[in-house]
Amino acid sequence: MTLELPTVDKLDDVALAAQLQRRIDGKTKPLGALGRLEALALRLGLILGSESPALLAPQMLVCAGDHGLAARGVSAYPSDVTWQMVENFLAGGAAVSVLARQHGLALTVVDCGVRHEFAPREGLAIRKIAPGTTDASTGPAMSAAQCDEAMANGIELVRTLPGNALLLGEMGIGNTSAASLLLARLTGLDIDACTGSGTGLDADGLARKRRLLREVLALHADAGTPLTALAAFGGFEIATLVGAVLQAAHERRVIVVDGFIAGTAVLVAQALRPHVVQRCVAAHESAEPGHRLLLDALGLEALLRLDLRLGEGSGAALAWPLLESACRVLREMASFESAGVSQRDDT
Amino acid sequence: MTLELPTVDKLDDVALAAQLQRRIDGKTKPLGALGRLEALALRLGLILGSESPALLAPQMLVCAGDHGLAARGVSAYPSDVTWQMVENFLAGGAAVSVLARQHGLALTVVDCGVRHEFAPREGLAIRKIAPGTTDASTGPAMSAAQCDEAMANGIELVRTLPGNALLLGEMGIGNTSAASLLLARLTGLDIDACTGSGTGLDADGLARKRRLLREVLALHADAGTPLTALAAFGGFEIATLVGAVLQAAHERRVIVVDGFIAGTAVLVAQALRPHVVQRCVAAHESAEPGHRLLLDALGLEALLRLDLRLGEGSGAALAWPLLESACRVLREMASFESAGVSQRDDT
Repeated sequence: MTLELPTVDKLDDVALAAQLQRRIDGKTKPLGALGRLEALALRLGLILGSESPALLAPQMLVCAGDHGLAARGVSAYPSDVTWQMVENFLAGGAAVSVLARQHGLALTVVDCGVRHEFAPREGLAIRKIAPGTTDASTGPAMSAAQCDEAMANGIELVRTLPGNALLLGEMGIGNTSAASLLLARLTGLDIDACTGSGTGLDADGLARKRRLLREVLALHADAGTPLTALAAFGGFEIATLVGAVLQAAHERRVIVVDGFIAGTAVLVAQALRPHVVQRCVAAHESAEPGHRLLLDALGLEALLRLDLRLGEGSGAALAWPLLESACRVLREMASFESAGVSQRDDT
Repeated sequence: MTLELPTVDKLDDVALAAQLQRRIDGKTKPLGALGRLEALALRLGLILGSESPALLAPQMLVCAGDHGLAARGVSAYPSDVTWQMVENFLAGGAAVSVLARQHGLALTVVDCGVRHEFAPREGLAIRKIAPGTTDASTGPAMSAAQCDEAMANGIELVRTLPGNALLLGEMGIGNTSAASLLLARLTGLDIDACTGSGTGLDADGLARKRRLLREVLALHADAGTPLTALAAFGGFEIATLVGAVLQAAHERRVIVVDGFIAGTAVLVAQALRPHVVQRCVAAHESAEPGHRLLLDALGLEALLRLDLRLGEGSGAALAWPLLESACRVLREMASFESAGVSQRDDT
């Protein structure tokens, strides 16, 4: 049985786009003076299909999974940090927990395939495919059936979440490697350019990681489609995010993409459904060198550049107030007419 | 009688700096993974003198004034827009009104010298020196006594405001010209490099503005000190902001600097008291080309780059949640120890 992927329509309401642009241009400020906030307001209006968009019940979905490849030393941290950080997310002590609280974002943490048994509790969704992927240097990280199952989990999770905005986060020791491999395969870019030091490898560690990833890429030379590449390189958290992105795009939710790894889930989803990216807002461009290449491939520009290298959804949470601001500008700012403010001398 | 300017101590508590850095490094994230948010947390901790800094009752101070030079066509907008926008700020319809509401920032609008009589009302402080400065192409924009009076107003205003954080905004048709002139004089940079199209001059308008500003700069060749330059080029809103910055720095408030024009007030204040900039956070780097030069001169890097060209305090308000986040990270994030998360393999 093959998984039925959600359809994603093209957003092409030119009348609404013109209306939104007129509304933005009529606000009491010089034309274009709110810069990228104006482009953001336009995008949010188009996604939500409204001249007065409002963001409702935003959901932060943090997907976690372990990677067999981590045993090959691609990360500065041991795999156990994945489950320990999941516990930390749930206990409220991680960066994403703190930032989600600050901005009123509902936080759901998903065990997509962590090498640990969690006690069930509120805020934790257990959708474990297996305790970690297979080591991708020895074979595909997951089977096609596992890949489908993880995507189906993401689809189902988003279906059950309220609201009209989804913020993506992830956790998984070793998952910048999976992201670099997916980026290289789906864009054709050289693997060295797509590979960085992740959470903090030194120069030797980075050189080793690049050699290893080149081998892994060659081993899976036949994994040329988005889904075979996803299965070959993993991880379960990325596949779950792909499903979540497709479902959120299908429902016309605003999708706030955190960093490099969540971004590769969007890259896979976009390769499967070419209008996904219309629903996406890139939150933060990280110091990881592949991230710039990824954003270029998606045609997105991130709102923030703060040299974060954390994932978890921290960048998405930090950018969130800017989305709120863009909507409020549309809804609450006066027009030249309503406020009795003079226009330019030359208009 | 000469105005007594507030003193500004050097922040040099190395023990606190080390304590803050240890605290940041112990949080559950890879070392440095929160990037510029970590440097911001350190700075806020040092300004507020606390390992667990909290921002209290933040005050947005928007200073407005008119410029005699505006009659020479340095802006795309008529001078009347200054008072009309003040009305708009107070009515709640301007960008800064909307953003201040979003983030719980108390908004005080100051008539520092607008060419208009305002009816007194809540949220408006009338500290008018004169209805607009003198045209700086014919003589000093203000007298030394007027300059002192405006600075004294800024000092007194901050003294009466609660809280430990001050966000700076401004409004004044023609005031990018005053800012460019101050930047050129205080840094020695060429006036052309310091001059941009403000809120939207076309290429011809910009060329005219540059020629005019070169003449004005030459006319006041003898205005070589921070205070004589401030008086020569204006405006009343900038001089009021200089006083506000000095008093806020004296009191160790966090000073959030909006854009190019508010930034020149910090440049003047810093020239008068060399430790002012330790208390400052640059919110947004605008598209106005002089702004990059100004930030370099102050040794600041802005948190946001969103191509705003608005002033009003809009950039400061948009950056505000990042300051809140930095403090919350210090106060609320778990440490490796408290959360039971493993450290790096190599530590």
